[in-house]
Amino acid sequence: MKTLYFDNHTKSLCAIDQTKLPQTLEYIYISDAKALYDAIKTLKIRGAPAIGVAAALGLYSCALRFEDKISDGFVYSFKKTADFIKSARPTAYDLFYASDRMIHIAESNAANPIEYILDALRDEAQSIFDENLAECRAIGEFGAELLQNGYTVLTHCNAGSLCAVEYGTALSPIYVAASQGKRIKVYADETRPLLQGARLTAYELTEAGIDTTVICDNMAASLMQHKKIDIIITGCDRVAANGDFANKVGTLSLAINAKYYGVPFYIAAPSSTIDRTIPDGNSIIVEQRSGKEISDYWYSVTMTPKKAKCDYNPAFDVVPHELLTGIITEKGIVRNI
Amino acid sequence: MKTLYFDNHTKSLCAIDQTKLPQTLEYIYISDAKALYDAIKTLKIRGAPAIGVAAALGLYSCALRFEDKISDGFVYSFKKTADFIKSARPTAYDLFYASDRMIHIAESNAANPIEYILDALRDEAQSIFDENLAECRAIGEFGAELLQNGYTVLTHCNAGSLCAVEYGTALSPIYVAASQGKRIKVYADETRPLLQGARLTAYELTEAGIDTTVICDNMAASLMQHKKIDIIITGCDRVAANGDFANKVGTLSLAINAKYYGVPFYIAAPSSTIDRTIPDGNSIIVEQRSGKEISDYWYSVTMTPKKAKCDYNPAFDVVPHELLTGIITEKGIVRNI
Repeated sequence: MKTLYFDNHTKSLCAIDQTKLPQTLEYIYISDAKALYDAIKTLKIRGAPAIGVAAALGLYSCALRFEDKISDGFVYSFKKTADFIKSARPTAYDLFYASDRMIHIAESNAANPIEYILDALRDEAQSIFDENLAECRAIGEFGAELLQNGYTVLTHCNAGSLCAVEYGTALSPIYVAASQGKRIKVYADETRPLLQGARLTAYELTEAGIDTTVICDNMAASLMQHKKIDIIITGCDRVAANGDFANKVGTLSLAINAKYYGVPFYIAAPSSTIDRTIPDGNSIIVEQRSGKEISDYWYSVTMTPKKAKCDYNPAFDVVPHELLTGIITEKGIVRNI
Repeated sequence: MKTLYFDNHTKSLCAIDQTKLPQTLEYIYISDAKALYDAIKTLKIRGAPAIGVAAALGLYSCALRFEDKISDGFVYSFKKTADFIKSARPTAYDLFYASDRMIHIAESNAANPIEYILDALRDEAQSIFDENLAECRAIGEFGAELLQNGYTVLTHCNAGSLCAVEYGTALSPIYVAASQGKRIKVYADETRPLLQGARLTAYELTEAGIDTTVICDNMAASLMQHKKIDIIITGCDRVAANGDFANKVGTLSLAINAKYYGVPFYIAAPSSTIDRTIPDGNSIIVEQRSGKEISDYWYSVTMTPKKAKCDYNPAFDVVPHELLTGIITEKGIVRNI
């Protein structure tokens, strides 16, 4: 199952529409800026690494259709489009990182013919794609060393193949461990409000034959209390220089619970997710999303009374580094000591 | 807003149908055993104290319609009906306690005329009603001392007027504080899987004019991190002799988060909830409920993939006493020191 790729036939970014899972596996084709922005904004494409790769392949798809006739205008259009795409979501570092790499390629080739710039953009997007694949696989290899046969892993949100090109980050060690013949059981937090755990993590893990149980987010502490969790691995969207990190809302509560019960808590992410320009978690901007996600999104009727507010809906929370056991990267495991 | 009462016009138990909230405020009138049994069984009437009072008023309503002409037959019918009502739900202590008090009144008056027995039953039901009202009001008076003007309170599940006659337990201090002119803001955990917070707590608080914001359960830690919560008050279903207690699943995670951030954590309950016959939380048996509550209950479609399990759905979790700041009872506040 490929999460996203460049479709040579339509010359478009092709990606699974993740809002349709687990009921329907449906691919969308994207070749204009508005569609790319919307797909990222509305979480059809989601997960930090996938957003980065989608931005790269998507921007190349858009650039193929620019009507500019001279390189200066082309590069100007590319920069403008990339800046628009970067504004789709505020927290994921990969979106900025990948877009900026593409902008740099366009600008540093501004003296060359448009055809040449397009080739360079194609190669850069392909590099970003390939690097993600290699990074996720390497994260899996290192992370699998933490997983003993018979282990039970708890995870939150979706940081699997659906959030990347393949393998993913937090789930990659599970896939690698399973391929090594280890028996691994997973508890997946459903991950309110958008249910990425119930819909996406449970989908990709069970499709891969992994024993998976979905729980409500508020049941994780009870599992830890009864010593049913050997290790927690989640993804992360951004790591500050001191190790503080942002991940899907609910990760903070989980990390505090893990500390209380002595359960090892790891995050898995490419080393590029570590942003050394921000000293600590206080500098991470957390996206606030619509309260309708809490009151309405998956329900057949509105579940909150009219007079109640739903105006606190942070997409992420920021976890202090002291709660972290270690970071699994493509270069190895960095332990918090 | 009255949760339940004896309606003198129809000579029936009148109660809010809580399965219809928050979309519709609908009262049901109950005067036969089958309707009373069904209302308790299907959670139209829910919350341990409310179930107890409903059993008392409901049994009296049924007794008014018995066709027995002699006292012996009348008392026999009453005992049979009460035993049937007691079988509606297996765990609610209040259901047995209230029903048994009514049976005792009937049996101890078996030598008296039916009219006399009916009067005694009416008085006993009224006493059970009045005692609940007085206990909840006293909990509110004591608890309100903890709430300063401008405080923000976090609560979980529903332990308000909808689970009792009026006031409730955890929400009673908020109602009393508001009536004293204090400005109180409330964050209500939506309380997955059955959303008692989103549907019931948010409904009754906003109907009473209290500023209420519904959050997903996993967002509470983020609020505490940002110092937006002054105090947490929840209800509780059972307290052991050492102070360990059971409450709606998710309370454990909340209590651990509160300890980490130094937020005072109180439970509110009648002193009868403290069960000195059980030494600690290990003796509290936790009910496991259907996984459909996680995957399907409020959704228009099933939100988990077919191959995923949902077989861990504890209705409660057990919180160790070390996480508790104090218990607010009708006799005063017991502090954990």
